[in-house]
Amino acid sequence: MERIILAHGSGGRLHHQLIQEVFLGGLENRTLGELLDAAIIDPPAGQRMAFSTDSFVIDPPFFPGGDIGCLSVYGTTNDLAVSGARPRFLSAGFIIEEGFLIDDLKRVVASMREAAERVGVEVVTGDTKVVGRGQVDKIFINTAGIGFIPSGVELSPLRIKAGDQVIVSGTLGDHGLAILGQREGLSFSTPVVSDCGPVAGLARALLGEDPAQVRCMRDPTRGGLATTLNELAQQGRVAIRVDEERIPVLPAVRGACAMLGLDPMYLANEGKLVAVVAAERAEEMLRRLRSVKGGERAGLIGEVTDGSPGLVLRRTALGVERVMGMLEGEILPRIC
Amino acid sequence: MERIILAHGSGGRLHHQLIQEVFLGGLENRTLGELLDAAIIDPPAGQRMAFSTDSFVIDPPFFPGGDIGCLSVYGTTNDLAVSGARPRFLSAGFIIEEGFLIDDLKRVVASMREAAERVGVEVVTGDTKVVGRGQVDKIFINTAGIGFIPSGVELSPLRIKAGDQVIVSGTLGDHGLAILGQREGLSFSTPVVSDCGPVAGLARALLGEDPAQVRCMRDPTRGGLATTLNELAQQGRVAIRVDEERIPVLPAVRGACAMLGLDPMYLANEGKLVAVVAAERAEEMLRRLRSVKGGERAGLIGEVTDGSPGLVLRRTALGVERVMGMLEGEILPRIC
Repeated sequence: MERIILAHGSGGRLHHQLIQEVFLGGLENRTLGELLDAAIIDPPAGQRMAFSTDSFVIDPPFFPGGDIGCLSVYGTTNDLAVSGARPRFLSAGFIIEEGFLIDDLKRVVASMREAAERVGVEVVTGDTKVVGRGQVDKIFINTAGIGFIPSGVELSPLRIKAGDQVIVSGTLGDHGLAILGQREGLSFSTPVVSDCGPVAGLARALLGEDPAQVRCMRDPTRGGLATTLNELAQQGRVAIRVDEERIPVLPAVRGACAMLGLDPMYLANEGKLVAVVAAERAEEMLRRLRSVKGGERAGLIGEVTDGSPGLVLRRTALGVERVMGMLEGEILPRIC
Repeated sequence: MERIILAHGSGGRLHHQLIQEVFLGGLENRTLGELLDAAIIDPPAGQRMAFSTDSFVIDPPFFPGGDIGCLSVYGTTNDLAVSGARPRFLSAGFIIEEGFLIDDLKRVVASMREAAERVGVEVVTGDTKVVGRGQVDKIFINTAGIGFIPSGVELSPLRIKAGDQVIVSGTLGDHGLAILGQREGLSFSTPVVSDCGPVAGLARALLGEDPAQVRCMRDPTRGGLATTLNELAQQGRVAIRVDEERIPVLPAVRGACAMLGLDPMYLANEGKLVAVVAAERAEEMLRRLRSVKGGERAGLIGEVTDGSPGLVLRRTALGVERVMGMLEGEILPRIC
C-alpha cells in the first residue's frame, strides 16, 4: 500500500500494521514497543517535572532546513529546556489526511527519531488518527513532553530585575523567512534555511554551575523576539530595552526582510533561546554560550530597566528609542 | 469578536487575549495561570508514572451525550486509568479552523473543565493553533495525560493466564451508534446517547484492596470490544472465549445494529472498561464494580482458555463458536 487510507486510523487490523511498520520500526524503543494504553515511566527521585505541549501544523510539512517531524520534537523539547528541565519523554499524536504518502510519513518519523536522539528524549506513547480528504491539510502532529528539573534551577519571569541583561543565542528570523520563501516560491540570492534545532544544549551551557544567575529563559517562536520580550516584560513587571544594532540577524535575512517590508523581530525562530541573566555574570555566560554548537553567534542585546512595567523599547542605530509591541495580526499562518 | 480568526493563532496580542479570556477563564487553575512554556509539577515520591496521549477529531464535535471537550478529557484519562494510574495532569492542544464560533469554543472548554473536575485532573499546559478555512474540519483537540500508579498495581497482558475471567463494565456500542445516528440523521425509537464518561472510578473499584488479582484492563474504544480482546489475546499470548448472551448491549443498540447490519462488538465505546481478572475473585469484583456509578450493568462475559494464542472466539446463543477477529476496514471514521 502506497498511501494512507481511512482504515489506517480505525483501531483495527490495518491500524495495527501501520503502527508496527511505521511507528515502532521508526521510533524503536522498549517503552513504545510495549504498546500499552499508557507508557509507564519511573521518574527520578526528588526532581520537579516540566510538562509541555505543542501542535505542529506547518505548511509545507517539508521545508528548507527541516520538516514537521524534527520540528515537532524540537518545538516541545525546547519549551521544556527553556523551563530549566532536561527533556526526557515525548508523546506523539498524528492526524493524517487520507491519501498521504506512506513514504512521506516514514520520512517524518525518521526525522523525529533523529531529532529525539539528538536531544536525548524517547517517544514513548502515541496515537494516530486518519481523517478524510479535505478534513485536514496533509499532516498535523502534536507532541507533549516531560522533562526533569535539576535542583537549584528556579526560572521565573518574577525573578527578573532592573539591570539584568538580555542574551539571545543566535540569529533571528531564519525559520520564518525560510517558510515564507518556500511557500511563496521566492528565491533569495543567499539561500535561507530554517534554524529548526534543539536549544537544550544551549540552555544547559547557560545554566552551568550557577543556575541562580539565570532569571528566565524563553524560545522566541511564533510572534518572534518582539512578542517574547513583551511576555517577559509583562509577566516580570519590568521594562526591557534592546539595541537593534546588537541583535544578530543574517545578512540574507536582513536583506530579504527589507525588500519584503518585514521586521525580523516578529519572525518565528525554532532553535533559538532568549535569556535574562544577572548583569555581573552576563559576559561569562555569553562566552559559555558561544562555545556551544549553535551558540556561536550569541549576543548581549539589551537590558532590563526600571521603566514602565511591561514596556519594551528598541533603540535604533540612530539612537532613537521606539516602542516594540507584541505582534499584531498575523504575518504568516501555520509557521510551526 | 464572534469567530476565530487567523490572528488568534499568531502568538501575538489577539492570541494572548484568547488564552486569557477563553482558556484561563474556562480552565482556571494556578499552574495553567502561570502561562509558562511548561507546567512545573511535583511528582509524588516513589510512584511510577503513566503517560498517554490521544487526538480527538470527532465529527460532529457536539453529539448526543457529550462533545469533543469532555471526550478529550475522558479519552486520555481513561487510558491512564486502565493502566492502573490515578490521572492527575493533562495538556491540551487545540487546532481550530478559522471561522469557528468563539461561543462554541467556550462550550467545549466548559465541558473539558467539568469533565476534568469529575475525574480529578487539571489541564496545566496547552497550545492553540488556528489554520485557514478548509485546512481542518472545525476543531481537533489533542490531550496528553500524566497519572501516578499506586504501589502494588502491576497490570500487564503478560500476566493473563488460562482460567482468568473477562469482565466488561457496562453496555457496549452506545458511543459508536450515537455518533452514527447523529451523523446520518437516523432517529431511533429509543434515543441512543454516547457513553462518553470516566472509567477512573470503575478502575479504582476493581483494583480495590487487592490489585494483584486484576491482570490487565483496557478501554474498548475504536475497533470495539472485539479489537480490544484481540489485542489482549495477542499481547498476552492466550485465547479468549466470550458468550454473546452475557455481553450487555442496550435493546435500542441491539435493535438498531440488527437493522443496519452492524455488530455492536465492533462499535466504539467511550466510558467502558474491559478487565481480565483472577477467576477466584471474579464474582466479588463484579459486585464491587456494580456498586459504583456507571458499573451497574457490568457483566462477566467470558474467560481465558488454553486455546491457540491470539485467538478470540464468540459463543452464540445456539452454542456455536465463531472466530471474532480484529476490526477489518473502517466502520465509521472520526469516531473519537
